[in-house]
Amino acid sequence: MLTLFDNADSGNAYKVRLLLALLDIPYQRIEIDSVHGETRTPGFLQRNPNGKVPALELEDGSYLWESNALLWYLAADSAFLPEGRRDIAEVLQWMFFEQYSHEPYVAVLRAWARHGPISEEQRRQIPAREKEGYRALGVMEAHLDQRSFMVAGQPTIADLSLYAYTHVAGEGGFDLSDYPAIRGWLDRIASLPGYVAMDAV
Amino acid sequence: MLTLFDNADSGNAYKVRLLLALLDIPYQRIEIDSVHGETRTPGFLQRNPNGKVPALELEDGSYLWESNALLWYLAADSAFLPEGRRDIAEVLQWMFFEQYSHEPYVAVLRAWARHGPISEEQRRQIPAREKEGYRALGVMEAHLDQRSFMVAGQPTIADLSLYAYTHVAGEGGFDLSDYPAIRGWLDRIASLPGYVAMDAV
Repeated sequence: MLTLFDNADSGNAYKVRLLLALLDIPYQRIEIDSVHGETRTPGFLQRNPNGKVPALELEDGSYLWESNALLWYLAADSAFLPEGRRDIAEVLQWMFFEQYSHEPYVAVLRAWARHGPISEEQRRQIPAREKEGYRALGVMEAHLDQRSFMVAGQPTIADLSLYAYTHVAGEGGFDLSDYPAIRGWLDRIASLPGYVAMDAV
Repeated sequence: MLTLFDNADSGNAYKVRLLLALLDIPYQRIEIDSVHGETRTPGFLQRNPNGKVPALELEDGSYLWESNALLWYLAADSAFLPEGRRDIAEVLQWMFFEQYSHEPYVAVLRAWARHGPISEEQRRQIPAREKEGYRALGVMEAHLDQRSFMVAGQPTIADLSLYAYTHVAGEGGFDLSDYPAIRGWLDRIASLPGYVAMDAV
């Protein structure tokens, strides 16, 4: 059986829990207290040398990490990964967008809001991170204005990857009132058969 | 023919040029002056709504962007993408590591060093970015200490992705003297048949 090294508050970990639920794949989960340093212990670094959740222990005892790589691994041969080289590349495009242009702003401001107090250095970075977060949300809004899902007209791991922190963007101070296409898309994801909420751990 | 919207100084763009050269795929390149705002013009945003190089125009006139998604697209069915779900997932794992845990430190400090002057806010971030950059290089060093290449014992797009900014890390002030496994790996990449240097544009 798969073992997920997880954190209840991490959107990156939730992505993986959500896909496992949608695909009805059984797994055991081990909660890691990343806020209090449990991802940087020698024991955990043997699982993921980069010291982050999520990490997935496979049936053969080996490990994979990086949330979006785990999504790809679990979704291969499922309906959540489209067929065809171009569509798969576009799924990856949006997942790299998520990690580089969305997560460091939308997720990080949420983490700071939830696990404060923050440093003066972090406080100074808030306006720039807000601006970049809204810029990423604007890119998504324009894309979803013409589409039901991010890629190939069907729910894929690109949607799950972006859903994880977008649906709790408000917890980092982001207001989605002016993002109706994103709000409609969030509702479509939450209606998928087998959907589980982030706090359902 | 493929058209690469490129920038001579961008490691993210160089990754794609390097793979195109290794695979001997013909393409035309269009230089975009990202430092002076040319990635944020209305015309360029129609190509990549996220406003970054590289972007690739395919034969059908559609666009893909995100450097590592372009690597995946171009390498599919080539020797630079291994076969097997687990190995491909591990390639993606290292490419997501590159974008989240390596590029924002190793590449960004290089960009600041080359395209200064930087702001006081950026200057304050240098020590933290140096620390995170060396942490990422440490993860790579430990991994390469036992291996010739990042995944599956063969050169893959995971190597090319990480090579792009690692081989010019010195330009951002990173000293690789204490990273012998990385230096050996850099030499192996530079010895691949068809290799082109970053400044060979």
